[in-house]
Amino acid sequence: MHTIAELQKVVELELSKQEFVVEPKGLYQPIEYVMGMGGKRIRPTLCLAGCKLFTDDITQAVRPSLSLEIFHNFTLLHDDIMDNADVRRNQATVHKKWDDNTAILSGDAMLIKAYQYATDINSEHLKEVLNLFSQTAIEVCEGQQYDMEFEQRDNVTVDDYLNMIRLKTAVLLAASLKTGAIIGGANKKDADLLYQFGENIGLAFQLQDDFLDVYGNIETFGKAIGGDIVANKKTFLLINALQLASGNLQDNLLAWINSDNFDADEKIEAVRTIYNTLKVDVLAKEKMNFYFDKAMNALDQVNGRESMKNELREFALKLIERSR
Amino acid sequence: MHTIAELQKVVELELSKQEFVVEPKGLYQPIEYVMGMGGKRIRPTLCLAGCKLFTDDITQAVRPSLSLEIFHNFTLLHDDIMDNADVRRNQATVHKKWDDNTAILSGDAMLIKAYQYATDINSEHLKEVLNLFSQTAIEVCEGQQYDMEFEQRDNVTVDDYLNMIRLKTAVLLAASLKTGAIIGGANKKDADLLYQFGENIGLAFQLQDDFLDVYGNIETFGKAIGGDIVANKKTFLLINALQLASGNLQDNLLAWINSDNFDADEKIEAVRTIYNTLKVDVLAKEKMNFYFDKAMNALDQVNGRESMKNELREFALKLIERSR
Repeated sequence: MHTIAELQKVVELELSKQEFVVEPKGLYQPIEYVMGMGGKRIRPTLCLAGCKLFTDDITQAVRPSLSLEIFHNFTLLHDDIMDNADVRRNQATVHKKWDDNTAILSGDAMLIKAYQYATDINSEHLKEVLNLFSQTAIEVCEGQQYDMEFEQRDNVTVDDYLNMIRLKTAVLLAASLKTGAIIGGANKKDADLLYQFGENIGLAFQLQDDFLDVYGNIETFGKAIGGDIVANKKTFLLINALQLASGNLQDNLLAWINSDNFDADEKIEAVRTIYNTLKVDVLAKEKMNFYFDKAMNALDQVNGRESMKNELREFALKLIERSR
Repeated sequence: MHTIAELQKVVELELSKQEFVVEPKGLYQPIEYVMGMGGKRIRPTLCLAGCKLFTDDITQAVRPSLSLEIFHNFTLLHDDIMDNADVRRNQATVHKKWDDNTAILSGDAMLIKAYQYATDINSEHLKEVLNLFSQTAIEVCEGQQYDMEFEQRDNVTVDDYLNMIRLKTAVLLAASLKTGAIIGGANKKDADLLYQFGENIGLAFQLQDDFLDVYGNIETFGKAIGGDIVANKKTFLLINALQLASGNLQDNLLAWINSDNFDADEKIEAVRTIYNTLKVDVLAKEKMNFYFDKAMNALDQVNGRESMKNELREFALKLIERSR
């Protein structure tokens, strides 16, 4: 296995071998359902890649890599209750297909399962891996908390926002790579550089998500365009626009935000025009590129196998090439 | 520190030193609130006692003992959402004082915090302690799942019920003692015997809780009498009564269970009379004593400090003396 595509296949194969359903089935079937919803398995794949940078034998990284995927899916499960989301990956969410109580309890069991997988390694790196896992997990909760609070707050700054997406999205990608690196025997410096690579790629990726919601097309974006605008979601674009707009433009933007009764397409078009006038699209692209370059710079400095570094460069490019 | 009362004070002192609230406060204040609600701190105290059986230095057991208390309070927090309970220990539950989303997310953070505390020990026993912790945590989830399913099921057997309370209540007491024993350097046999002690005490304690709901008085029970009867909760008493009743008695019992419109005191009195006639109170007492004796027998065989064994005997007696 020399490519990330091959490592992703390892992840898929290992995931398919897991038996998530035992008694009581009411607790475990939702876990199997969520784990079977698909997705790109980015986090476990990055974990294996992080390991592969430093050693040929990735056996020890397999269980922790699955733990990261289980954890990620746990956060989706509980977030979907909190966000009252009915659909994920074109399928009913657990709290819709079952009910809230099932989603809460099965999520709890998933979080515990994630720890069981993370614990299933040699003692040598156990403590370091678990400390990183817990630290990351609690940061992801903090990110979700900020995200929910921001909906109610009118004074969210760009820095607040960047910190929120760092916690909610970036640190788990970073920790995935670093976990693999630790298990692969990387020294502290290289493990930390890989963490920086993952963190900055995560930030770039999330900013791109904000950008594509407004400027993407449904084929490459994979979901309907303008959802964030319709919902007044405080994205990088909106926060900057609120800060930059003045006079008529400000009145216009606030009117759209405060309107309860509007045609969605009309609102999307109008807000997009305001964004263009304020050039927040350019700001978003610049910020995205800033983080992307930072990520690449960190990766360049990693003292690991060159072929896998190239794979990670490719991977990062593909992740954000949609808008570059 | 030579007594369980002293160990409990250690727990209280250590708990009071913990700073649970950092940013974002919205995530952490509910944790501090729940941890400050009080309670007898039985699990961490048992953990320290389990350690003290085998060594004088309980330092290493302190953080894991707190982890057990945090985990226990996490289960209460999430269970209260699922059970739609408004009040716990005379205070508003988190999902009432804040909201469901806060209760879900703060609970998740608590579970992660519990793991952080459990991980904070020497590497020597880390893996064993964490495996026991995760195994127990997932069993507690299974117990809660069965408990919720039983509400909807008409075919719950006595064995089903005993397994449910074992998972929901007994295994955490057992694991608390065993965690302390492992950290204290106990051999496998003694650690397992302590587990059995805790498990059987837990079963006896839960059966007593069922019994006191019907036959206790509010002073010693600490909550209103008859709540289980009013709610048709499938307790050891009701399950046995449903199995034993026939003829008029059966009709009578089923009529009370199926009635939507009744005077609570009248129902409690009527069902209690049926229980008396069927002698399910005697069955409950016998079963309680059976588990209590099993617990004591296991403790007797533990090869540990005799003074602490006596403390644990006292503790067990006090725990169930209310009804013996």
